[in-house]
Amino acid sequence: MTSPRHDVIGIGNAIVDVIARHDDAFLSDNELGKGSMQLVDEAGALALYDKLGPAVEISGGSAANTITGVTSLGGRARYVGKVADDQLGGVFAHDIRAAGVSYDTEALSGGPQTARCIVVVTPDGQRTMSTFLGASALLHEDDVHETQIADAKITYLEGYLWDRPEAKAAFRKAAALATKNDRSTALTLSDAFCVDRHRDSFLDLIRGGVDLLFANEAELLSLYQTEDFDAAVQQVRKDCQLAAITRSEKGSVVITPGEIHEVAAQPVAQVVDTTGAGDLYAAGFLFGMAHERALPECARLGHVAAAEIISHIGARPEKNLSALI
Amino acid sequence: MTSPRHDVIGIGNAIVDVIARHDDAFLSDNELGKGSMQLVDEAGALALYDKLGPAVEISGGSAANTITGVTSLGGRARYVGKVADDQLGGVFAHDIRAAGVSYDTEALSGGPQTARCIVVVTPDGQRTMSTFLGASALLHEDDVHETQIADAKITYLEGYLWDRPEAKAAFRKAAALATKNDRSTALTLSDAFCVDRHRDSFLDLIRGGVDLLFANEAELLSLYQTEDFDAAVQQVRKDCQLAAITRSEKGSVVITPGEIHEVAAQPVAQVVDTTGAGDLYAAGFLFGMAHERALPECARLGHVAAAEIISHIGARPEKNLSALI
Repeated sequence: MTSPRHDVIGIGNAIVDVIARHDDAFLSDNELGKGSMQLVDEAGALALYDKLGPAVEISGGSAANTITGVTSLGGRARYVGKVADDQLGGVFAHDIRAAGVSYDTEALSGGPQTARCIVVVTPDGQRTMSTFLGASALLHEDDVHETQIADAKITYLEGYLWDRPEAKAAFRKAAALATKNDRSTALTLSDAFCVDRHRDSFLDLIRGGVDLLFANEAELLSLYQTEDFDAAVQQVRKDCQLAAITRSEKGSVVITPGEIHEVAAQPVAQVVDTTGAGDLYAAGFLFGMAHERALPECARLGHVAAAEIISHIGARPEKNLSALI
Repeated sequence: MTSPRHDVIGIGNAIVDVIARHDDAFLSDNELGKGSMQLVDEAGALALYDKLGPAVEISGGSAANTITGVTSLGGRARYVGKVADDQLGGVFAHDIRAAGVSYDTEALSGGPQTARCIVVVTPDGQRTMSTFLGASALLHEDDVHETQIADAKITYLEGYLWDRPEAKAAFRKAAALATKNDRSTALTLSDAFCVDRHRDSFLDLIRGGVDLLFANEAELLSLYQTEDFDAAVQQVRKDCQLAAITRSEKGSVVITPGEIHEVAAQPVAQVVDTTGAGDLYAAGFLFGMAHERALPECARLGHVAAAEIISHIGARPEKNLSALI
């Protein structure tokens, strides 16, 4: 078997972010839970957009952000995710290819528009997201190709895919192909409410052989329905071989059945927009894993990438991350 | 006659900016003259976009930037400009309305797409622009309504409109209606190359009764085909009643037949992206004029608005400018 050309193949919802700044009152006026991600239909997205202030459009999508982080760090990566054949789909495809990522998922014709995530950034830098999944939810298992999975060391999957049946089938197929081809699988839980919607099947997935689990503290607590972080850590080390748990400014904890590493966050002069912090932590960690770095170094790379992303608007790197590490 | 409800009505090319950062080598590799604006056709725009790095989409358009600056300063304003009925047209319309601007120009169906300006920002903060005019050039004189012109103290016109016959007719109609309704007219020369393309007709316009002329130093020198700034100043004070000439970090010069005021620029901690600096200077100046401020104070308001815009990516205010003055 030839060695894989790519470090990571990421599969996720292909989304364009629509980012606007508002104060906290906007969140309460529109019944948005601060820091959360809620799914909205097209009418809901349009109604919220009507109330939204002037915005900026930037390519996003959790796994897509991670994958562009990997290439920015100097890694080689592929992305699989579905846009429509409309202007915003063109923007998404351009931006991810311009970041050096291999991307050739066929665009959807005649269906819903390219997915959009309305991101409200409050003065504290927190982001609150309302996502219209549109074409992204119609990612199909036929979009997942065995040669591409076999050609990457790690297959990285976002939990958000689990929200829709077609995308879920694509997710399952990718995970099965990775295992069949002796490649690693990594999963991010994506969002505490996403975990809440799919707790049992996520636990089945993790126990069934995910090699690397990413979660933030809230997602881990939701997974094990506890408020005790240490108890959750003890649970996850029984359920999987490797977990990397982010805790915002407290850094991250890397957990294996035999070891626990606490790694400090990188200092940030000013937190502008936390959108993508978890995605970029995963980018650094995955890059480290693909290049056989020690676990604490993988976490450090994650924190360096996350620190860059929260220093500006948007969830794609503005600087060449390889220069920062 | 009732007094006008709006301070300013702006008429211009309705454009979405596509902004990416590149070093100077990208400019020379693609034969782009640093700091210039060139017109490209759709094929040219697509070819350049293919080479462009990851980008951000932000509503732009010179007069549109100015008009959102006027509302951000607390003024009341209307905009007239043409988008297509596509996703980027929807983005443009949303953003300008969300900024508090009255905007109801009918979107174009079945023609070219919404205009795009590819803006390359170099590390020194300079912007180099390649514009595909698309639907914006099909602004028609029927889009200019006498009631709307009469309802604004100042009709503000961008020189870029002069590049295409339909838009030029709309420009002429607006200027004539302003004069007929005893309203002021203001013109910005937009770009030194634009002046070069239309020198004689711009001079006819100015001598024919533009009340307020905006230009930067390069545009003024191009207008009078001289390299001597003082000579150009002496020329312009013969040709028009009021001119406001910007000189980047040297501030601006406000010129009437009887007076010359030199006004200092506002200090800026870091110049991130100069896109929109001239547009926002005009916003502050027009707001001041509409509110009967003294000329040096009009210029100061222009410099405050310009300083905000060059401190971040994009040519629309991120902060409420009224809080800054």
